[in-house]
Amino acid sequence: MAPVKIGIIGAGSAVFSLRLVSDLCKTPGLSGSTVTLMDIDEERLEAVHTLAKKYVDEVGADLKFEKTLNVDDAIRDADFVINTAMVGGHTYLEKVRQISEKYGYYRGIDAQEFNMVSDYYTFSNYNQLKYFVEIARKIEKLSPKAWYIQAANPVFEGVTLVTRTVPIKAVGFCHGHYAVEEIFEALELDPKDVNWQVAGFNHGIWLNRFLYKGENAYPLLDKWIEEKSKDWKPKNPFNDQLSPVAIDMYRFYGVMPIGDTVRNAIWRYHRDLATKKKWYGEPWGGADSEVGWKWYQDSLGMVTDVTKRVAKFIKENPKAKLADLAKVIGDSLSEQEFIIELNRILDPEKRSGEQHVPFIDALLNNKRDRFVINIPNKGVIPEIPDDVVVEVPAIVDKNGIHPERIEPPLPSRVVKYYLYPRMMRMEMALEAFLTGDIRIIKELLYRDPRTKSDEQVEKVIEEILALPENAEMRRHYLKK
Amino acid sequence: MAPVKIGIIGAGSAVFSLRLVSDLCKTPGLSGSTVTLMDIDEERLEAVHTLAKKYVDEVGADLKFEKTLNVDDAIRDADFVINTAMVGGHTYLEKVRQISEKYGYYRGIDAQEFNMVSDYYTFSNYNQLKYFVEIARKIEKLSPKAWYIQAANPVFEGVTLVTRTVPIKAVGFCHGHYAVEEIFEALELDPKDVNWQVAGFNHGIWLNRFLYKGENAYPLLDKWIEEKSKDWKPKNPFNDQLSPVAIDMYRFYGVMPIGDTVRNAIWRYHRDLATKKKWYGEPWGGADSEVGWKWYQDSLGMVTDVTKRVAKFIKENPKAKLADLAKVIGDSLSEQEFIIELNRILDPEKRSGEQHVPFIDALLNNKRDRFVINIPNKGVIPEIPDDVVVEVPAIVDKNGIHPERIEPPLPSRVVKYYLYPRMMRMEMALEAFLTGDIRIIKELLYRDPRTKSDEQVEKVIEEILALPENAEMRRHYLKK
Repeated sequence: MAPVKIGIIGAGSAVFSLRLVSDLCKTPGLSGSTVTLMDIDEERLEAVHTLAKKYVDEVGADLKFEKTLNVDDAIRDADFVINTAMVGGHTYLEKVRQISEKYGYYRGIDAQEFNMVSDYYTFSNYNQLKYFVEIARKIEKLSPKAWYIQAANPVFEGVTLVTRTVPIKAVGFCHGHYAVEEIFEALELDPKDVNWQVAGFNHGIWLNRFLYKGENAYPLLDKWIEEKSKDWKPKNPFNDQLSPVAIDMYRFYGVMPIGDTVRNAIWRYHRDLATKKKWYGEPWGGADSEVGWKWYQDSLGMVTDVTKRVAKFIKENPKAKLADLAKVIGDSLSEQEFIIELNRILDPEKRSGEQHVPFIDALLNNKRDRFVINIPNKGVIPEIPDDVVVEVPAIVDKNGIHPERIEPPLPSRVVKYYLYPRMMRMEMALEAFLTGDIRIIKELLYRDPRTKSDEQVEKVIEEILALPENAEMRRHYLKK
Repeated sequence: MAPVKIGIIGAGSAVFSLRLVSDLCKTPGLSGSTVTLMDIDEERLEAVHTLAKKYVDEVGADLKFEKTLNVDDAIRDADFVINTAMVGGHTYLEKVRQISEKYGYYRGIDAQEFNMVSDYYTFSNYNQLKYFVEIARKIEKLSPKAWYIQAANPVFEGVTLVTRTVPIKAVGFCHGHYAVEEIFEALELDPKDVNWQVAGFNHGIWLNRFLYKGENAYPLLDKWIEEKSKDWKPKNPFNDQLSPVAIDMYRFYGVMPIGDTVRNAIWRYHRDLATKKKWYGEPWGGADSEVGWKWYQDSLGMVTDVTKRVAKFIKENPKAKLADLAKVIGDSLSEQEFIIELNRILDPEKRSGEQHVPFIDALLNNKRDRFVINIPNKGVIPEIPDDVVVEVPAIVDKNGIHPERIEPPLPSRVVKYYLYPRMMRMEMALEAFLTGDIRIIKELLYRDPRTKSDEQVEKVIEEILALPENAEMRRHYLKK
């Protein structure tokens, strides 16, 4: 048993925080631990805190809670600092997207080849990258032995930046790779009999190994594609693992793109809403269309709203049981999903699927387990430089992180035509951020297929830098 | 003294062939050698042969000539095979360009980011890549100890392809790096006191080292830029070493792009004729505009025409001296250039500037010398895979080719933002060629900023494949 202090930065994200808390309650080896919830949104923080405490009381777990608006409190003496904060929130992202679209950049200037995820701002969210480094530096100062665990986007840029610049222990997690299970389910494969491996960059991972009962399982996928893919319909905007675009990418690259990798495709699939609908399915055209993203933002808004309502109800009815909450929650789609989530959280047999708590348990209590983890490459993918963060399977135990040998290797097309150009944009984003050289952001846009003139580039950058949120970014980039 | 047999494939290229012949005449160590001129254009071959023989007779060199329409004759028992042939010639290139432009691809589908040189077709000239491999295989069979020396474009793709697929000795040469001398001249630097180095890919090399009398000479360039660059005017379409685009690239990348590298820029400098004029100078907008390229083709046509006229004149006047030929040549710009070239060829003190003959002399006669040469990387540029051909300085002597250590290393921006994407397109071109997978060429076009729809891609490829010259290419790509 190893009680620890875990700081969660951006804890106002209710679902994520409750998942971690419920995982902690179901992990006996972490009994007695302290969780410090930190957010700058006091109302959301308060609501999450209320729910978390209620949940812990109900299940009778030995877990202490703190809440704070001050990030230092979440870091000081922590053993693990989990960062899920999105600086500026969706309001900022939408402002930048709106400016970008005014100048001809559909879905925003950060939407780039192999980087179409709509909240994955790598060039125009200076504050987010800066916050990653700030947190890392605070860890270095206040709790130098703590692990920095990044859940916030962009994971690829963020973890590469932190591991290159601050000498602390850092990893990144994403749940995108669980989408392999959607493939197993469609093919009716018992997951226990599947031997699989994924490798690449976060939101750019590929199913390099796919064996069923020891045999190549790709022919089973081919059969599914031939017989069943025509009947495929997305259940929600994010449901794209078996969409036409995933299959098209599989056919070209030779292995399946997994999870958000399907979103991170070339412009051919993203030119406009009609194109997106064709490839990602009706009616949303995937998560990264104007329709799909609105669906997501509405869902997020409803989750926040439900969280607050539920917290209020609990305060007013301290004896109510969480299991009875379904009745006070409405029955919109998001609310239904909240209830499903709630039931999963309440089920003592089920884990959330987030890897953070099992990772901590594996490290501290030698609960040897397999993770898909973002760490500096150091030779795992031979063609990729050592100091670039890759997302690969690894065994974790008390001795640390042991990346698996990637076997068979990623196909040459994945490395040369997908990972290299994706890596280039990561390098441009980090160099721009680190040097404050605005010419790198301009160069990115000069190379953008949506750019028709230098003036367009100048104007869009000027207007983004003029946003009040970007006062510091502006100073950073215009200092010369 | 080591008499050798040198086969020149594509010898109907008069200026190139005469340069090699004159260099051979001025190289005592290669006295007694045999030169086999090969071309499929009998009339041009005959003209070059006549001129070459006349020249050798006049200077009294010991050099034997053969001419042949059969490539095997140029390869059998050769010690060196120099390939300068462009399969299909400019006629083919212009046909493809015309089709491409009809479908919205200004300057052709092969014009790509970092690959704007107008005769550098890597995707649509299947016959050219195929010819490289054919020649290499013939060398392997007919004269396995011979060196394959590639002068024909695309050097980067061609030498990488040959060195990856055929086990013969192969190198590539280009004279592009001599453009460093234009910089020395502009800055009034004595070349003897300049310590310089270039590195990169063919048509993608950068002045990583530039010292004058042991000190960093870039500040001298900065001064020139500040004081004199505003007065710069191009002397011809190819005169771009100190053009605004070269200076702009220098400012961004931190070192000067050298020679054709200046042409191989991003679309920002190449969008249309007006843009090209702005960056490459009036009135041509550089060599790769419709105006500049017409100038070049006209010049080539005139050189061929003058060659034929001169050859005819010599046959009719066997006692005429080459030095007197100026009077029978006209006085158009190209004809004037031909005369300048002729005078250089006739001057016993001057070498042509082509590296082929000095390279042979260095290897055979241990005339240790420095070359800029295209060879498989094998660690010379650390970030680039071993089997990619790089253009780097090397010392050559009887023991072989000794690449210099690249010091200081290429700036990270050059490697990550220029060489990587250029390398990706080389890999796509070679994989398309080797596998016959048409989807790679489509993928290239899907990623092209000029592509607006899948139909555009389908149509342009279909029409290029339908050209009679491309019957074999069509079978290769549509076999599946």
